[in-house]
Amino acid sequence: MTTQHSTGPQHKPVTLLGLGPMGKALAETLLEKGHPLTVWNRSPEKADDLVARGARRARTVAEAVTASPLTLVCLTDYDTMHKVLEPAAEALAGRAVVNLNSGTPAEARAAVRRSEDRGVDYLDGAIMVPPPMVGQPGAVFLYSGSRAVYEQHSEALTSLGDPRYLGDDPGLAVLYNTALLDMMYSTLNGWLHATALVGSANVPAREFAELALGWFMPVVVDYAALARLAPDLDAGHYPGTLSTLVMNLNALDHITRTSEEQGVHSGHPRLMKEIAERAIAEGHGGESYLAVHELFKKATLSKEETSTPLP
Amino acid sequence: MTTQHSTGPQHKPVTLLGLGPMGKALAETLLEKGHPLTVWNRSPEKADDLVARGARRARTVAEAVTASPLTLVCLTDYDTMHKVLEPAAEALAGRAVVNLNSGTPAEARAAVRRSEDRGVDYLDGAIMVPPPMVGQPGAVFLYSGSRAVYEQHSEALTSLGDPRYLGDDPGLAVLYNTALLDMMYSTLNGWLHATALVGSANVPAREFAELALGWFMPVVVDYAALARLAPDLDAGHYPGTLSTLVMNLNALDHITRTSEEQGVHSGHPRLMKEIAERAIAEGHGGESYLAVHELFKKATLSKEETSTPLP
Ligand SMILES: NC(=O)c1ccc[n+]([C@@H]2O[C@H](COP(=O)([O-])OP(=O)(O)OC[C@H]3O[C@@H](n4cnc5c(N)ncnc54)[C@H](OP(=O)(O)O)[C@@H]3O)[C@@H](O)[C@H]2O)c1
Ligand SMILES: NC(=O)c1ccc[n+]([C@@H]2O[C@H](COP(=O)([O-])OP(=O)(O)OC[C@H]3O[C@@H](n4cnc5c(N)ncnc54)[C@H](OP(=O)(O)O)[C@@H]3O)[C@@H](O)[C@H]2O)c1
Repeated sequence: MTTQHSTGPQHKPVTLLGLGPMGKALAETLLEKGHPLTVWNRSPEKADDLVARGARRARTVAEAVTASPLTLVCLTDYDTMHKVLEPAAEALAGRAVVNLNSGTPAEARAAVRRSEDRGVDYLDGAIMVPPPMVGQPGAVFLYSGSRAVYEQHSEALTSLGDPRYLGDDPGLAVLYNTALLDMMYSTLNGWLHATALVGSANVPAREFAELALGWFMPVVVDYAALARLAPDLDAGHYPGTLSTLVMNLNALDHITRTSEEQGVHSGHPRLMKEIAERAIAEGHGGESYLAVHELFKKATLSKEETSTPLP
Repeated sequence: MTTQHSTGPQHKPVTLLGLGPMGKALAETLLEKGHPLTVWNRSPEKADDLVARGARRARTVAEAVTASPLTLVCLTDYDTMHKVLEPAAEALAGRAVVNLNSGTPAEARAAVRRSEDRGVDYLDGAIMVPPPMVGQPGAVFLYSGSRAVYEQHSEALTSLGDPRYLGDDPGLAVLYNTALLDMMYSTLNGWLHATALVGSANVPAREFAELALGWFMPVVVDYAALARLAPDLDAGHYPGTLSTLVMNLNALDHITRTSEEQGVHSGHPRLMKEIAERAIAEGHGGESYLAVHELFKKATLSKEETSTPLP
């Protein structure tokens, strides 16, 4: 059992539906790692080079899912998955589906209910890396839902990346996915907006990056140091010993007024200021800045939301 | 000239106006490093322990500024500085003032004009660290305005921290200050909001921090990697080869809808989505996410700004 060929019995056949940029990366990785692979895509020609490298092209979704105990789905969204799987409902009964598209937790939970109705074992997933990183060490794939599917097919899932099972609530993988991307976009926007702000006085992005990313952020917003504050968030404990939300509001006011003075976009600082003001109004003024976490936990309508009714 | 006492001729006398938490830290550091120190504060009792440690307490601002060639000011804001300095205008003529309060570039530029009218050499500054870090290695102090003052008093400024001269536009120090804090608050808000988002499914902040701060952010939003993209911002070059703004809008839509579904605050993701939509409407849809930098450069009114008229 120690020396086996890459097509040996430990490499179970896998079916993959969807050959967009991400689906292609999954397919190439599965072939490289020696999985017998059956693919289906709405536009069949996208499978041409995969077929040349040993994949089997199925003509229908039903034919595709019948070829393997496990079907991976990597289409645009949940609606597309439902549309594509529906004609193959009979063929799918008793088999496992792992879905890897992005979406919302409610969509993931609805997909589980639908799968249960059809006798399909369903695991939801989210890919946290871009296509070129699939199959590389440290390529994190998040999963939630059926632990049975996760365990039975761990070998194929491990071929794709570093799988992490988050729990049996099927909404968790996409929830983590949106939360992580939320952090990413917030940090990117902070950097891009700050760069635009100094750029209004002709400071090159390159020059600002030296101080901002070469010194300030790694020292003042060190990721490991933030992580050490997480227990305080869980405890709702925000001691204002070094600096208070009221002091921070003063800084947010300077950032907002400076954006206006310098003629750059002021939406972000204005919203941050408004959030701090509201947290102060709710009694957190003497606590640290982290107390805005309490505000974020609630669906409190902010100024623009009250003036722009939700659809 | 090689062995000198700490009160030797290289330690010029310094005057400091303002003994709030930051002013006190400046005063203690100057005393420790051996500068003859004269202090003034509206509430004189705040100088008691400094006097016990060798500082001289002045009864008036005019008396204070006359004691030293250099006066450091660390009061709440620019208006307070003007109010405090006005009665000492005559005593200040021909002397140097270095102001360290926070504010906006327009306030800093106005302070220079006012100082010029009164024959005062003025340097503006911004302290990038909290009081306990003053005087420590790596405590960055930003300066802009009179290079002559910066050079003549570099020894006292170096006693306080790591001084960086940004240029003769006096607005630069506070502009950099607001831009750096802008980045800091954006990143903090991203983390706090993301934590609230997963918290809505009872994921502890501690558990989320492990993946978010222990793996995702350092890998995907590595500060040094961002810095390498800065030349692209300067060139307005945003190639959408790996992923496009249109693809990112899809993710921002998931983040916004997930925030709504899970009942957490949705102001931040909604604004980020709106900014991406506007950048796409302006023709950047096929470029990378970094193209929102073009939008941030302009004072374009966002949805909430058009519905809430500016004062
Ligand atoms: N690309 C990334 O960087 C990345 C990273 C993480 C997660 N993801 C997620 O992975 C999923 C797939 O992304 P992707 O980048 O591969 O591209 P995509 O454009 O989101 O999806 C393309 C795939 O969906 C199929 N499709 C779309 N509409 C269809 C319909 N009505 N009927 C049948 N098939 C349909 C396409 O078929 P045709 O080829 O026939 O058009 C193609 O197979 C998405 O949910 C995305 O959010 C992507
Ligand atoms: N603390 C920090 O972490 C930090 C970090 C970086 C930059 N800064 C900046 O440093 C500056 C000073 O901050 P701080 O923390 O020391 O506390 P602060 O509360 O901003 O300033 C307090 C000082 O201002 C004086 N003051 C206020 N109103 C006055 C008035 N009308 N007339 C005369 N004096 C008046 C106070 O005198 P009394 O003692 O008589 O009230 C005290 O000396 C601020 O601009 C702040 O933004 C602070």
